[in-house]
Formats: sequence, C-alpha cells, structure tokens
Amino acid sequence: MRALVKTHAGPGFELHDVPTPTIRDDEVLIRVRRAGVCGTDVHIHEWDAWAAGRCKPPFVVGHEFAGDVVQAGSLVHHVKAGDRVTAEGHIVDERSVLSRTGNAHVDQSTRIIGVDRDGCFADYIAMPASNIWPLDPALSYEIGGIMDPMGNAFHTALTANIPGSVVLVTGCGPIGLFAVGICRAAGASRVIAVDVNPTRLALARQMGAHEAVQPQDAQVAVMSWTNGLGADVVLEMSGVPSAVHQAFALARPAGRVQMLGIPSRPIDIDFATEIIFKGLTVYGVVGRRMYDTWDQMSRFLRSGAFDPTPVITHRLPLEDFAEAMDVIKNGSAGKVVFEVND
Amino acid sequence: MRALVKTHAGPGFELHDVPTPTIRDDEVLIRVRRAGVCGTDVHIHEWDAWAAGRCKPPFVVGHEFAGDVVQAGSLVHHVKAGDRVTAEGHIVDERSVLSRTGNAHVDQSTRIIGVDRDGCFADYIAMPASNIWPLDPALSYEIGGIMDPMGNAFHTALTANIPGSVVLVTGCGPIGLFAVGICRAAGASRVIAVDVNPTRLALARQMGAHEAVQPQDAQVAVMSWTNGLGADVVLEMSGVPSAVHQAFALARPAGRVQMLGIPSRPIDIDFATEIIFKGLTVYGVVGRRMYDTWDQMSRFLRSGAFDPTPVITHRLPLEDFAEAMDVIKNGSAGKVVFEVND
Amino acid sequence: MRALVKTHAGPGFELHDVPTPTIRDDEVLIRVRRAGVCGTDVHIHEWDAWAAGRCKPPFVVGHEFAGDVVQAGSLVHHVKAGDRVTAEGHIVDERSVLSRTGNAHVDQSTRIIGVDRDGCFADYIAMPASNIWPLDPALSYEIGGIMDPMGNAFHTALTANIPGSVVLVTGCGPIGLFAVGICRAAGASRVIAVDVNPTRLALARQMGAHEAVQPQDAQVAVMSWTNGLGADVVLEMSGVPSAVHQAFALARPAGRVQMLGIPSRPIDIDFATEIIFKGLTVYGVVGRRMYDTWDQMSRFLRSGAFDPTPVITHRLPLEDFAEAMDVIKNGSAGKVVFEVND
Amino acid sequence: MRALVKTHAGPGFELHDVPTPTIRDDEVLIRVRRAGVCGTDVHIHEWDAWAAGRCKPPFVVGHEFAGDVVQAGSLVHHVKAGDRVTAEGHIVDERSVLSRTGNAHVDQSTRIIGVDRDGCFADYIAMPASNIWPLDPALSYEIGGIMDPMGNAFHTALTANIPGSVVLVTGCGPIGLFAVGICRAAGASRVIAVDVNPTRLALARQMGAHEAVQPQDAQVAVMSWTNGLGADVVLEMSGVPSAVHQAFALARPAGRVQMLGIPSRPIDIDFATEIIFKGLTVYGVVGRRMYDTWDQMSRFLRSGAFDPTPVITHRLPLEDFAEAMDVIKNGSAGKVVFEVND
Repeated sequence: MRALVKTHAGPGFELHDVPTPTIRDDEVLIRVRRAGVCGTDVHIHEWDAWAAGRCKPPFVVGHEFAGDVVQAGSLVHHVKAGDRVTAEGHIVDERSVLSRTGNAHVDQSTRIIGVDRDGCFADYIAMPASNIWPLDPALSYEIGGIMDPMGNAFHTALTANIPGSVVLVTGCGPIGLFAVGICRAAGASRVIAVDVNPTRLALARQMGAHEAVQPQDAQVAVMSWTNGLGADVVLEMSGVPSAVHQAFALARPAGRVQMLGIPSRPIDIDFATEIIFKGLTVYGVVGRRMYDTWDQMSRFLRSGAFDPTPVITHRLPLEDFAEAMDVIKNGSAGKVVFEVND
Repeated sequence: MRALVKTHAGPGFELHDVPTPTIRDDEVLIRVRRAGVCGTDVHIHEWDAWAAGRCKPPFVVGHEFAGDVVQAGSLVHHVKAGDRVTAEGHIVDERSVLSRTGNAHVDQSTRIIGVDRDGCFADYIAMPASNIWPLDPALSYEIGGIMDPMGNAFHTALTANIPGSVVLVTGCGPIGLFAVGICRAAGASRVIAVDVNPTRLALARQMGAHEAVQPQDAQVAVMSWTNGLGADVVLEMSGVPSAVHQAFALARPAGRVQMLGIPSRPIDIDFATEIIFKGLTVYGVVGRRMYDTWDQMSRFLRSGAFDPTPVITHRLPLEDFAEAMDVIKNGSAGKVVFEVND
Repeated sequence: MRALVKTHAGPGFELHDVPTPTIRDDEVLIRVRRAGVCGTDVHIHEWDAWAAGRCKPPFVVGHEFAGDVVQAGSLVHHVKAGDRVTAEGHIVDERSVLSRTGNAHVDQSTRIIGVDRDGCFADYIAMPASNIWPLDPALSYEIGGIMDPMGNAFHTALTANIPGSVVLVTGCGPIGLFAVGICRAAGASRVIAVDVNPTRLALARQMGAHEAVQPQDAQVAVMSWTNGLGADVVLEMSGVPSAVHQAFALARPAGRVQMLGIPSRPIDIDFATEIIFKGLTVYGVVGRRMYDTWDQMSRFLRSGAFDPTPVITHRLPLEDFAEAMDVIKNGSAGKVVFEVND
Repeated sequence: MRALVKTHAGPGFELHDVPTPTIRDDEVLIRVRRAGVCGTDVHIHEWDAWAAGRCKPPFVVGHEFAGDVVQAGSLVHHVKAGDRVTAEGHIVDERSVLSRTGNAHVDQSTRIIGVDRDGCFADYIAMPASNIWPLDPALSYEIGGIMDPMGNAFHTALTANIPGSVVLVTGCGPIGLFAVGICRAAGASRVIAVDVNPTRLALARQMGAHEAVQPQDAQVAVMSWTNGLGADVVLEMSGVPSAVHQAFALARPAGRVQMLGIPSRPIDIDFATEIIFKGLTVYGVVGRRMYDTWDQMSRFLRSGAFDPTPVITHRLPLEDFAEAMDVIKNGSAGKVVFEVND
C-alpha cells in the first residue's frame, strides 16, 4: 500500500509502498478515506527539537482519519467489516487507574498514532477496536477525517460553561476556528476571536465570531461588551506568550481560562495579579475525553448545529504532501485534508 | 392610581382607584409599563383551593412587570429615578443562611408580590431595591415584563447540561415554550416538545422545537432519535400525572428530570423502576436563582440568541382583564401581557 | 468443586459438587476466599416474585467475594496468577455509549453474577478480567469480600457533598451502616441514623453515628440540630414508604436525597410539597460507578479512616447457608460473610 | 478607646487613644474580645512595597476578630446588642453583578478592614451588619477571632474534592496548618505537609498530617504513597517559587492545584510540561466565599471534627504588639492572637 513515511531522523516525508498492516484479534483494519493534516505533522516533517526528542523513524505519519473497516479481529464485537468509522488517535492502557476513573486522556502510557507508531497517511491503518468511533450516517468521511482535532476544540470549549457566556478565543488556527463555531452553537452570548492573520480572522467570522480582531484590539472588544468586567471564559489556542498574558488579563474575576495552545518555552507569570487575586480557574487541555468528547461532538455534528466545513480550505491527494506542509507553514490554510481513497 | 384588586375571598378581580404606594428608605417606586399574566393569577381570580388557602384579600394582583423607576429611597444606591427596570417577584430574607449560601430561591420566608402582598397590575408598585434587576437598553418593556416567568424556564433548562443534549419538554404553556427556545439557543442537539394542544405545538415549532408531538407520539420521537436510549434531559412543565410518568419513562439511564409543573395531587410512583434502577437525577425547580438566573437570562436576551416574542399572543389593557383570564383558561393563549402605561 | 446452587424455580439452595469453571482468553479464574451474603441472596433463596421473574435456575448464587487468581487468560495483562483480588459483580458491555461516557453502572445490558449467571458461593469463579479490582495488600480477604455492597454505600454517600453536611441515614442494614461510617470519615458534621431495630441502631452508633434513633424521633433529632432547616443530605437506605416520605420531609430546602433502598411497590408522592417547592435534588443509586467508586473505596480503606469490620456480625462456612439466611431474615445480623477457603 | 494605629507612611505601629467609632443605620458596633494577627499586618508594620502602594495612614490595623455587639443601627434586623459575633473582613458591593452571582469574594470594589479602612486591633470596631457572622455558642472568642484566616484555609481545601484524596500542602504557616486539619477532618486519605521550618512541621503533625517533610523529601513522600501517580490535590500555601514548581510537579495527571500563597514576583512557568500536558486544573484562592465558606467552617467547628487550637502558639495583649511582629517574622509562631478585652 501507499504510505507517507518519516524515513529518517531529519526533515522531510517520503511517499512509499509499504506492506499493508496485519491486525491482532482485538484490532480492526481500516481503509483510509480522508485524513486531516495537523501542525504536529509539520513539526515531524520539519524535524524540530520536539520531534527529534520524541519520534523514532521509520514510521507512517498522520493521526486524524476516517474510513471503512475492511477486517475485524476475532475478539471484536462492536465493529465489523463495512462499518464507516473514525478513531481516537491516543492509544492508552484501558486498565490503568486513570483510565478506569475517567482520565484516560491523561494516561501516561499514551501512544499516539503517526507519532509513536504507524499512522494514517496511508491506504490502510490497523487500530485497536477500543479506539474506534462509529461515523454517523449523516456525516461525510471528510468530517470524520477531522474529528480528532475537532475533539480538542470540543474538549476545550465544553469543559467550560458556555451557554450565555462571553468567550474570548485567542488563536484562530483550525482548532480555534472549530471552537468559535462550537461556542456559538452552544449559546455563548458573545464570541470574540483574536489572531494576527487576516485570513484566519475572516474564517473566524465565517464560523460565527461576533467579533474577530487583532490582539491589540481585544481588550476594547472584551471590556466594552462586558462593562469592564472581562470574559467569562477564555480559550487560549495559540501558545503565544503575549496571548497567554492577554488570556489572564481579559478573563473576568472568577473566570476560567482553558489552555490548549502549547507555549514552546517558559513564560514569566505574575501569579499574584494574573491568576490568584482574580480567583481564576486555569485548565490544561490534553486530547479528548474518552469518550465523552466524542459523544458530544457526534451530537453537535448530527444535529447540524455546528458545521466545521468552512474551516477546510485545502483538499489534496497524498502525493501533494509538500503543498500541504507549505500552506500550513505560510498561514494561508485553515484545515488541510488528504483525500486518500475514493 | 388604577389597580387590579382582589377585593374579597371569592372569584373575580376589580379595577379600582387606590392610593399610590409609598416607599421605605430601601425601596423604589416604579411606574409599571408592561406586566405579564400568569396561571397563578388565574388561580387567584378563580379563587381555587390553593388561592383560598394562601391569599388574604384585599390586595393588588400581578407579579411580572417592567417599568421606570420614579423614586428611590435614601439608602438606595444602585437604582435611581429614570432607570428602566424589571424585578424578582420573590421577596426573601437576604440574611438567612439559605440566602447567604446561594439558595435564596428556596428561602422559607419568601413573600411573593401579587400573592402575599400588593402586586404589579397597577400604575405603580413599590419594591425593595434589592429585588430590582436593570433592564438592558436593548430590551423592550414587553420583554422585561415577562422576565420573571422566563426566568423559571432559564432556571429549569440551564441547571441541566444542555449543549449537545436531547431534551424532552413535556408541557408547552408559556414557560415550556420559553424553555424550548432556550434549549435550542443553548445547543441542544434535539428538542422534542409535547402537548395535547395543537396551538401550543405550533408555537413550540415556532420557538425551535425539532419535533412537537402529542403525548402518545413522544415515545417514538424520543426513542427513534436516541436509538432506544432516551432523552438526556426532560423538562417536566405540565404537572400532569401522565406526563410525570412519561418524563421518567423517556429519560435515559443516568438522565436528568427537571420538575417545574406542579401536580395538583399525589402521584403513585414506582421508585424502583421509574427512578432508582435508571439512576435518574430529579430536580425540583422553584422560582429563579437569585440572581444567577437573571444574569444568564439577560445575556441570552441581549445577544439575540433567544427571542421570546412569538410566545406572546395577546397584548391587552388592564381593563380587559376578563378577556385575559378567558384566553388563558380556554387554552388559546401563549403569553398574555398587560400594556399598562405608554 | 463445591458450590451453593439454586437448582430449581422454588425456595432453597443446595450445596453441590459441580465442575470447576473454565475461562475464556479475556477472563481469570479465582479461588474464592471470602464471600458476602446479601439481601438479594435471600430473595433468591425465598424465591419471591422478583427472583421468579428474573432468575433462571440452575445457577451458582453469590455476587460479593475476594480471593486469589489461579489462572489468567492469554489476553489478560493486568492480573496474573497469585494476585489477591475482588471484583465488580455487574458485567456490562464496555463498548456501549453509556459505558464509554462514564455510566457503565446503568448500562442496560448488565448481567449480575449469582443472579443472571454463575456466582461466587463456590470454591472457584470465572470472571472477565475487566471486572477485577486488585485487593490492596493492607486489606484482608474478609474486607475484600464485602467491597461490592460497601461500594453501594460509597456510591450513595460520595455522590453527595458530605464534608460539613448534616446527614440523615434512613435504614441501617449493612449498606446503611457502611454509609454511616463513610459519612463520618468524610467529615459530615452530624450523622443521624434511623431504624426500627435496636440491634442495628447500636451498630450505627458503633459505626460513628452521632445519634441513632427510632423513626418517630428522627424529626426532632434533625430539626433541633439544624435549627429547623433540615438535613443537607438524606441517604434513603430502606425502601420503606414511610421512610421515603420522611426522607423528603427532613431534607432541607435545596437539599439532596440519595435513594438506594428499593420500595417494593408504588408510593403516593405529593411532588409539589415533598420535592418541587423545596427545590430538592433526588438521585437514584444503582450499583457502583465503574470504577470511580472502587478507587474511592480503596483509598478510604487503605488510609484506615473507615473500618467496616463492626458491621460484620457472622462468619460462617458455606455449609451453614441456612443459618446465614435465617439471621438475615430475622434481623439479628449486620453483614454475614462466608469463609470459603483458608 | 485604645487602638493599634498605623500613624504614618513608614515602619511601626503605635498604641493610641482614639475616639470610639460611630455607626451608620446599617452598621453595628462591636466590642472586640480576640483578634488574630496576620502576615499582612507584618507587611503593614514593616511598610514594604505592597503596603506602601496600597495603605493610606493613619488607620487602625487588624482584620480578624470576634467580640460582642454593643450597638446595632436602626436598619439592622439579624444582629442585636449582646450577640457574640465574628465578621468577614472584606467589605464588598452587595449589588454588583459579581456579588449577586456568588462571586462577592472577587468583587473588585473590595475594601479590607485594617488595610483600606479602620480595623479591629482596638477596643471597638464598626462593621456593616451584612458582614457579621454569628458566633456559635459552642465556640470561644479565641476561635471566632481567627475564623477569617481559617476561612481562607476552608476555601482552599473545600473547593477541591477532599474525601479519599491524597493531599499535598506546600507551606505550613497558620493557613497551611489549618488546611492540614481540615483535609484530615474531610476524609483525605493521605495528607503530606511540606515546610522548611521544623517547628511548623511539628505543628503540621499535631494537626493531623500523615507525613510532614522538608521540600527535598516531598517527591518521595508523594510518589511512594501514590505508586508514582502524584497527589490528587495540592494546596500551595507558601508563594515560594520552588514550591509552586513542586506543586505542579507532584500533582497527578488531571489533578488540582489550589494556589493561595502569593508569590512576590513573576515565576517562569513551562505551561506545556507543568500544566497543559498533565491536564491540571489550577485555582486562584481569594478570601472566603461569601458566605458558603463561613457556613462550612461553622459546621466543622461546631461538630468538633476540626480543632484549630494547636495552631495558636501565642496569646498576647495589644501592648505586646512588637513581640507579636517578632515571633511571626522569626518563624517561631503558629498563629498569634491578641487578647483585647476580657
């Protein structure tokens, strides 16, 4: 089969023919139809410090996908050949205490497909059956192919109280853009999106942001609407130090800051004035809650209340992976999707 | 001033000239502009057993209103003459332990305007300043005049988890109709409304119900959408015994049933099968949380995400109180509003 | 092996020699050491209407136990021969939406060992590995053998807010007695236990109840301590209609009633005065949360803050099953434990 | 009357005769009996940068006290001359949106007695009646005199889930020591206290810490008890940068860090590894929740489950204020209490 492979410790991917994976008794084999491209894939492509420290080539990259089950192991009961499915990309120990008490998303044994083992930028992928999520008949493979990162946005938004809230979203990459739409669908009374990139601000408006502004205009946008009080909820989706400080500054007293963006280096925080005296709650977001987030996401998508389609700006064949990397790096893309098999 | 007065222990109201109320130092005097008519007013008009047991004529009826402050006592700082306002109709002891710990809505000292003391179907009403809620400039007196009962709907809906949920609303009187719209605005993935009255079912659709059905069709509506699991949240707004049983029956395992409708007599409940084995949570809804509910409501109304206007079917002068009683009793009305001063 | 068998549709158990069970690849075989006797076992022994409607003889009875793993299937990774273990007795579909979203305890596919399939009153039992809970080295087999019903008590108590709360426990069977001790350990400011049986009231005091009273004295006990407000939390552990009414009557406004006792027939409830006007929350308790409850329970037992030992009044060999049934039926027992292998 | 006065912008206090305060109609006059001394008082005494930036001499210092009401204004209904009382020291705007929605503790208009206006190190203090909390008959003036800082400890501990949790307390000043005892009383399965000061570690053991260790030993203490997972809840009570890093490092994945200690300068935080990847929740603690915290505290004290007395190491007359400052500064004190009137 064809697969996009990280062949060695250094920049680049290569499209190779590799053996189709075989499955264990508790796994399924899936023919990939659509696969989302993530900033993480770019890090692996560029072979930055994080990638060099974590990944062990060679391996097939890609961790967001949807497709058709073509084979199911003998112990698999809930999924069968012919099922349209997507999957949680974090493979965890289902019997750990964290997993058994609702915290599988932070289980320390997590192995991520396309990062720690073979992934989905390929014709086929083998997955543990326990990671499979059925794709509702109402949803396309394309939507299914980006449910993993959309799940991060659902996790970030819906672990805060959104109905009626004023929400500030700092950072309008694909996950931030999804979050804008989710917050609107969940009844936020005001969604203010912030980014430096005009293309992304336009997408934020399209996803339903009441206001989409440059960082220097965020304070006026928040404070004029809230009578100087601040945003009830801030979703920090950028990891940029100035945005992190802005998140704390523009959250209201007793407000909540959800941190999904990953700062690349330490940030000097004045806990007294930025967090403690304001009585803030700060929550670090990892992956998706297994599987509450998937259930919530399926409900929003099926009802039609939330449509992520405008975020998808590029649909490319696997062969055009270089273009995929480029449009993400140069900021001209929202979400990029590989069309793998039709 | 003119006032609609319950003059004696027996059926009827009378429109009288009465003295304009005077205020204490911690009260305000309000010129009433719009006032909502409630089923409770009908009970008092008809002088049923509940009314006869609780009310002590003579008194001015009416407990939902908006208007203009015309005078503020010397100890009042946050409200001043000229302010557009509405008010919480439950007057409670602000220093009780329940009030001081977030449970003022169930404080046992509650006195309700228009029930336990003079109310708002009049040109003027005196109110404790602590009960006043400012009316956002974006909102009309008419909207302000029905915020008290809308608050019941917000309390009922938003103390459950609505985003993504399948919500069943049993009973489409005005509060049920408001709840339908609130649940849609807050991101319910499916809102199924139930009533026997076709006029109300039509209003439910107008307020955003995905389905509005007769009681005998509710089971199919819920179970076909949820794959036999049941509704995540049921809002029981009727008080009808068969609807209460249906609420428990159609809630999913580990679901939540919010009870606002007041059954007029005891109901035989099989706790084992209706509540315990299903792991249900049942919540009794009283009034509005003071003042979380008012804050949430103001946010939804200001954002425009929720518009209660379609529920208002009749706008009448005080003089037409008999017609107001009639259209509520015969089921042809949604919400009825008195237009008191212009 | 020896096993206590429900041989036919009618009263009685028989101690038989039966084949030792074999295991599937995802199961383990456990040599039973201690096994708790439950009121459910008495219902099956007596063959009452519930038992006749649900159970299909022949089968081995018993659903609470601890023992040693003697064999583990090839797919089992977390448990191995030699491990000291106990187990969750509800076998559910791990891939159902309810299970995947934290509600396995109400999954509708639940099959209970010793009720719907072979149980643990035997020398050996086969169990799915996913139901196994490791027994902390600090805990005896005897404690492990009653963790299943203790888990019901933990579930009932710790899904309410206990620290600082005034807690009323109506019904002092073994689960009620465990709950008394759990509430004390979790910082309840007052635990008032109610039962008609003086033996049980004495055990309640031994487990830490501040007061243990007859039903007719409960109102004074609660209201005098709470200045007439009522109990913050009521744990209804009896299923007796008069106790259910008392639970609602003695809960404070905005209080919480946890219902674990199973009423054997419908109860006439005045929702208006008993639940709605008081703003109560009522929660139906089923089994144990998988596996949050087990984790909490293990923590309390390991820390020594809670000791269930006083509740155990009888330790018997399997041969004496008739005596076990008798002492439970005649109310002279707290918890009865079978000592199976030593 | 006698009063400890901050007379000018510079180090020192002076014990002066000043006029007894007069009260407004909504205030009460209290004869002080006991008053706690706080680190904040030391900052004001030393006139550090914080004090110089905030305080405006002259004013009477002190913000923790209990005493007897000697006069109540004409609008005061719930408190009367002769009542034994303590008081919340944060005076807030009761009509602000934050106050009306349960967040008075972070209301931005807060004025603190003894900091922003006259305080309680005096024979008498005037207070708004709304800030008064009745002192339970079972509690001494001494206990009442330290309920304000104890409230910080209750707020910090009981906004986390304590029953069954492993709790790490970093910093054993008086508030940390109170927290140790509260967590034990609320059913923590393990309380590990950390400080550099052996006197404080001894007090921590006396308050119920299972272990009380130097910072360098905290990791072993936490990780060996939790099998390498980490503490469920960390109460950061020191404000020391190394302790803040340790709080994040020793919290378990999906754990909770409550920050009460005030770092005096910015701290370099690696959000990725310290907070986000671990899925932590961080909560900034300000004052006491009004008045949920006071209610919880009263319940624990009245039940006898928690006794703060061992924390009180020094009882001094107002005249010995210099000694009070010294023993706090040199680390030999737990809590210091002024005995003002007997």
